[in-house]
Amino acid sequence: MAYRLTEARLQKDGEQRERILQLALARVAEGGFAALTMQGLAEEAGIATGSLYRYFRGKGELAAEVFARASQREVDALALVLRGAGAPAERLTQGLLQFARRAWDSRRLAFALIAEPVEPEVDEQRLLYREAYAELFVELLEDGTRQGHFRPGPPSLVAACVVGAIAESLVGPLSPPARAARDAGHPSLSLEQVSQALVQFCLRAVGAPLPEDER
Amino acid sequence: MAYRLTEARLQKDGEQRERILQLALARVAEGGFAALTMQGLAEEAGIATGSLYRYFRGKGELAAEVFARASQREVDALALVLRGAGAPAERLTQGLLQFARRAWDSRRLAFALIAEPVEPEVDEQRLLYREAYAELFVELLEDGTRQGHFRPGPPSLVAACVVGAIAESLVGPLSPPARAARDAGHPSLSLEQVSQALVQFCLRAVGAPLPEDER
Repeated sequence: MAYRLTEARLQKDGEQRERILQLALARVAEGGFAALTMQGLAEEAGIATGSLYRYFRGKGELAAEVFARASQREVDALALVLRGAGAPAERLTQGLLQFARRAWDSRRLAFALIAEPVEPEVDEQRLLYREAYAELFVELLEDGTRQGHFRPGPPSLVAACVVGAIAESLVGPLSPPARAARDAGHPSLSLEQVSQALVQFCLRAVGAPLPEDER
Repeated sequence: MAYRLTEARLQKDGEQRERILQLALARVAEGGFAALTMQGLAEEAGIATGSLYRYFRGKGELAAEVFARASQREVDALALVLRGAGAPAERLTQGLLQFARRAWDSRRLAFALIAEPVEPEVDEQRLLYREAYAELFVELLEDGTRQGHFRPGPPSLVAACVVGAIAESLVGPLSPPARAARDAGHPSLSLEQVSQALVQFCLRAVGAPLPEDER
């Protein structure tokens, strides 16, 4: 009987932890990591702040877990396209377009994941997830090279360059100043302009010449 | 008389602050931001830890200032080459080669600046300095486009892509695991391989076709 009680308790703890994580994710999607405070989250979850520390050792651990959860969704979505059907250049194009569109659809969250200044624990996760993205591009680059469509340098390095280019190209358009300018009606780059420039940049960079480059 | 004393005191304070900053910079160059502790630094400077807080409000502010000092050196060095003499493609090439070589010569410091997980105050500075680098590349891209050597997309966006590619291409080779592998005698990419791949990637990406791409 004691054993069953413990099992029930563990399951309940797991469910509570998951519920807190979902609330935390929603907060970051709404206001970035700056909006993720232990006290505010505890209030929203209807538990004491002290109890929150039973589930997460601190803000850093919680933020890192939110980051990993949200980033894994993006890695999975990108993997589906990069490993999907079609010629390598087309998969690269579609992967970039999808990544930019998903970031655009959740700008606050995307900026939080890519560049918001935050606890070192999240920086650690950023390094890990950049590697996860890079591995997907390594696969694609090797595939494209075998099929004669790409002529990149060392795949691990070129994949890192692609990941860096994607992230950095989105930092500006997604950053708080850019969002404020757009909200105030000032002109700024559209999703289409950003996507198109990113696709052109990356296709050229991996040695997949574009129609407009033929001469 | 009182006025002169105050002036002398201010100057002495400024010199002491500068001395502490130099010690802090040396620590980061040696062991990254992880090696920068207020207590260790105070001991090395021969002052009480409490006194250190008279000069810097905390580890975050100190680390941010060390970051800015070291990064400004890199921005200045890059500006000299990118704004120097020569055709735009040659300046881009030389700028990339110099940046990679300088990073290679101070690997621990370069990794600390580019990617070491650290206080949010340093992340803030990273965003600012990435923009400073990007502005240099915008100038070069516009110059190269006017001269008909480059055919990039929107310069601000392409410059960001270049900055991202540079940073991310160096993260792997400079990271602690890569340094450990090299120290243990395992094969890893050389400076020449990394530099060459980065130059090829960026020249192609900005629409400056390489000799090997002509066909």
